Amino acid sequence: MSNIETNQEIEGKSSNNKQEAMNPLNSDEFRRQAHMIVDFIADYYQNIEKYPVLSQVEPGYLRNCLPNSAPSHPESIETILQDVGKHIVPGITHWQSPNYFAYFPSSGSIASFLGEMLSTGFNVVGFNWMSSPAATELESIVMDWLGQMLELPSRFLFSGNGGGVIHGTTCEAILCTLIAARDQTLGRIGKSNITKLVVYGSDQTHSAFQKAAKIAGIDPQNFRAIKTTKSTAFALSPDLLRLSIRSDIEKGLIPLFLCATIGTTATTAIDPIRPLCNVAKEYSIWVHVDAAYAGNACICPEFQHFLDGLEEANSFSLNAHKWLFTNLDCCCLWVKDPRGLTQSLSTNPEFLRNKASDSAQVVDYKDWQIALSRRFRSMKLWLVLRSYGVSNLRKFLRQHIEMAKLFEGLVMEDKRFEIVVPRNFAMVCFRILAEAIEIGKNGVQILPNHETLANELNRKLLESINASGCIYMSHAMVEGVYFIRFAVGATLTEDRHVIMAWKVIKEHANAILGIP
Amino acid sequence: MSNIETNQEIEGKSSNNKQEAMNPLNSDEFRRQAHMIVDFIADYYQNIEKYPVLSQVEPGYLRNCLPNSAPSHPESIETILQDVGKHIVPGITHWQSPNYFAYFPSSGSIASFLGEMLSTGFNVVGFNWMSSPAATELESIVMDWLGQMLELPSRFLFSGNGGGVIHGTTCEAILCTLIAARDQTLGRIGKSNITKLVVYGSDQTHSAFQKAAKIAGIDPQNFRAIKTTKSTAFALSPDLLRLSIRSDIEKGLIPLFLCATIGTTATTAIDPIRPLCNVAKEYSIWVHVDAAYAGNACICPEFQHFLDGLEEANSFSLNAHKWLFTNLDCCCLWVKDPRGLTQSLSTNPEFLRNKASDSAQVVDYKDWQIALSRRFRSMKLWLVLRSYGVSNLRKFLRQHIEMAKLFEGLVMEDKRFEIVVPRNFAMVCFRILAEAIEIGKNGVQILPNHETLANELNRKLLESINASGCIYMSHAMVEGVYFIRFAVGATLTEDRHVIMAWKVIKEHANAILGIP
Repeated sequence: MSNIETNQEIEGKSSNNKQEAMNPLNSDEFRRQAHMIVDFIADYYQNIEKYPVLSQVEPGYLRNCLPNSAPSHPESIETILQDVGKHIVPGITHWQSPNYFAYFPSSGSIASFLGEMLSTGFNVVGFNWMSSPAATELESIVMDWLGQMLELPSRFLFSGNGGGVIHGTTCEAILCTLIAARDQTLGRIGKSNITKLVVYGSDQTHSAFQKAAKIAGIDPQNFRAIKTTKSTAFALSPDLLRLSIRSDIEKGLIPLFLCATIGTTATTAIDPIRPLCNVAKEYSIWVHVDAAYAGNACICPEFQHFLDGLEEANSFSLNAHKWLFTNLDCCCLWVKDPRGLTQSLSTNPEFLRNKASDSAQVVDYKDWQIALSRRFRSMKLWLVLRSYGVSNLRKFLRQHIEMAKLFEGLVMEDKRFEIVVPRNFAMVCFRILAEAIEIGKNGVQILPNHETLANELNRKLLESINASGCIYMSHAMVEGVYFIRFAVGATLTEDRHVIMAWKVIKEHANAILGIP
Repeated sequence: MSNIETNQEIEGKSSNNKQEAMNPLNSDEFRRQAHMIVDFIADYYQNIEKYPVLSQVEPGYLRNCLPNSAPSHPESIETILQDVGKHIVPGITHWQSPNYFAYFPSSGSIASFLGEMLSTGFNVVGFNWMSSPAATELESIVMDWLGQMLELPSRFLFSGNGGGVIHGTTCEAILCTLIAARDQTLGRIGKSNITKLVVYGSDQTHSAFQKAAKIAGIDPQNFRAIKTTKSTAFALSPDLLRLSIRSDIEKGLIPLFLCATIGTTATTAIDPIRPLCNVAKEYSIWVHVDAAYAGNACICPEFQHFLDGLEEANSFSLNAHKWLFTNLDCCCLWVKDPRGLTQSLSTNPEFLRNKASDSAQVVDYKDWQIALSRRFRSMKLWLVLRSYGVSNLRKFLRQHIEMAKLFEGLVMEDKRFEIVVPRNFAMVCFRILAEAIEIGKNGVQILPNHETLANELNRKLLESINASGCIYMSHAMVEGVYFIRFAVGATLTEDRHVIMAWKVIKEHANAILGIP
């Protein structure tokens, strides 16, 4: 592209071949090209095990593969797809691979993919009810459905004067509830007290909470990460919470918000909701329950006891895009009192005024979230619930949990390894023991400290495994202990992949330990 | 679904037919079902003119059409698609219709749809470089490409030590830059001064700015919406900005942030960037330039003069999902100094640590945005730029502008109507004059005030037109004048739709005026 060319265009000298004259939403062309992509993606899933799970490219690899500027003239979809295969796929870490066991899963499904297609095809900007009533109403209905599946207290459902909304991510859900809590409290005690507000979580609470608090203008010094210990399975202690609150009040600070977690990132630890809510209630603290990962498991009755006491909390969220077969992004947030959100997040510029909103008979989701514009995200969740049905969804989750149990059993059979914390869901925390070196008699350098040695050994083991591309796992640390997380949940994973993963882990352990 | 059934499942009595046993990412089933949806959407585009543009449903319509809870057992895609056609489509306001002229466009395209398919199919969670290098690198490259197309100052490109990131919406882009500005300033003057920070915009600035400021903890009393007037085409006056800043400083307040706009929502007014930046510079104020809609036009050289002075601003954003043939959501944000964002928005929990990030040789986009998780949004923008090429994209935009000119000409020919503010891009602000009633001699009740009468007349006209379902337009108000906005930009719109729209408008005007 150059200015010379540009001038030619202005003078009307641009070429006028068929392709250029075509409308970018021509339905015949849509059909032709979209069918091509369907086959491309179907082939991708079919062949996904052939790719290294963790991308093996080096930083900056793509700049060398692509031109320095956008093309002036159209390129065919065939050319572009070739480039996707040649340049993009090698740079992808294959979250959909059955050999993906890192972080938490990103469990896609056909139904969710189709829902995203429909949502993208309609391409509505559903900021308020009127801008596309179906987008708003389907979201309210599906959030009630899912709330029922979880046996949420009725006060979180629209039928109980609460309600649910789909956000992009947990960080957004926490931020919005925190803003609601902040504004309610400042409305009572005066805006100048913002610097005194304190928020509480544990040292296992997701970093999204700290980020949300910072964005909301909470002084980072007033962020409490209450210490947890292995002895209490890394759950937040209500007693320590009370101590922390009292200490803050003595300092003249104002307790505002607690983020409790069901299924923490490092170890899937579970904070005790009811006792924490009891403490919070004494001090009028807003309680948000973040169940990003493990909340999905609570569609199975055998896990619903973790939600005990939830009726005392103010808000609850889970990420269907983690472990409910819904593609990114789909964070489901329920609140007991939507007015908290709408009082803080409403804007009513003239250009958006309409009879339906003025009548107050409809939900305008723009006032439940940060942004004005919003995608039709409920479509994919609706298709997932309908295509699989509740009983199958439970079955899929239980299969993942069974696979995690299978893996846990394999680890426990090998004396060189240990399970670091008891498994709660479909994620196993394990590590190789420093003693394994003694067993292996290899040449690994003996470091002065035993735990430091174990940490180095596990770091080395994980790097070696991930670099192989055979499987991908990630790590975490608790109380100074570095360990490997094996999270089952990729949709394509079967028993055989778990068995193979353990084989890979043992092989790499043997190699590092010098065992032939 | 019931607890009885649930217990049966636990006891292993659930049915085991083929469908239930199938993996939700089975590639054969993916192929079969996704092809079906492609045809559904292609048919939708083919028939889109048959639907009323503005949905005609009543609040609560969908609750009556759908069951009260999610199904226990799977439903076929055929059944679900029938319901989409029967229950969802009637509740959609058809933003992709060629007869959609409301708000700003949401211009989808085949290329963007395909990009979204690929992104959804890969379903990676690209929070940092390592989690999928291609997602990060393609985003950086495409943002540089688009920056070049706009002739952005080189300091906004990665090659000039700036850089671009794709957010969901403008509100998010403003919020992130505002947080960066806030934290830089508070770092200098002390956190307790947060209550003294002041932010500036005009009374035409989008409500997203006010919302972002509130979220960031800026005292709503310190939000300045500086008055604009028709005499200066609703542009923010640098002199009034300076007066406002000085007045705040005299009160002991601290000026922080200016949001200038290229193409406001009500009238597409254009704030003068260079003079505003000059004022801002005197007081070390962060300047964000919001070009959500009109920024897209700046890929055409004839509009790039509006960006004059941008090198003095700190950040710049546009929504490719508005008018660059990219499906929702795709807000492109460039900053001159990414460290402003990363210093405020970085989190580095142990579980995300990796060699690439530690080396500081890669971009970790999680630190440029609110959320941790992020979709592979650059894929669709890349496909748009390549599938159409820069010269075609310019041509498409110019065609929209020509259609808006055509409409403007038609309005001007009819003495009963007036153009309310001069057209800048592809949006025409017009209204029917109160005098039209005299011309029409109809039975409309004469209200005491002339302008009130005109406002009521236009409100009635717009309601009547939108209720017809033939076309959809929206409204705005400036200086008490209610007017109708005719925004050309839907991808399928052609000259004939614009001509028909004018015919519809005249017919409804005649009916309201009692002209047979």
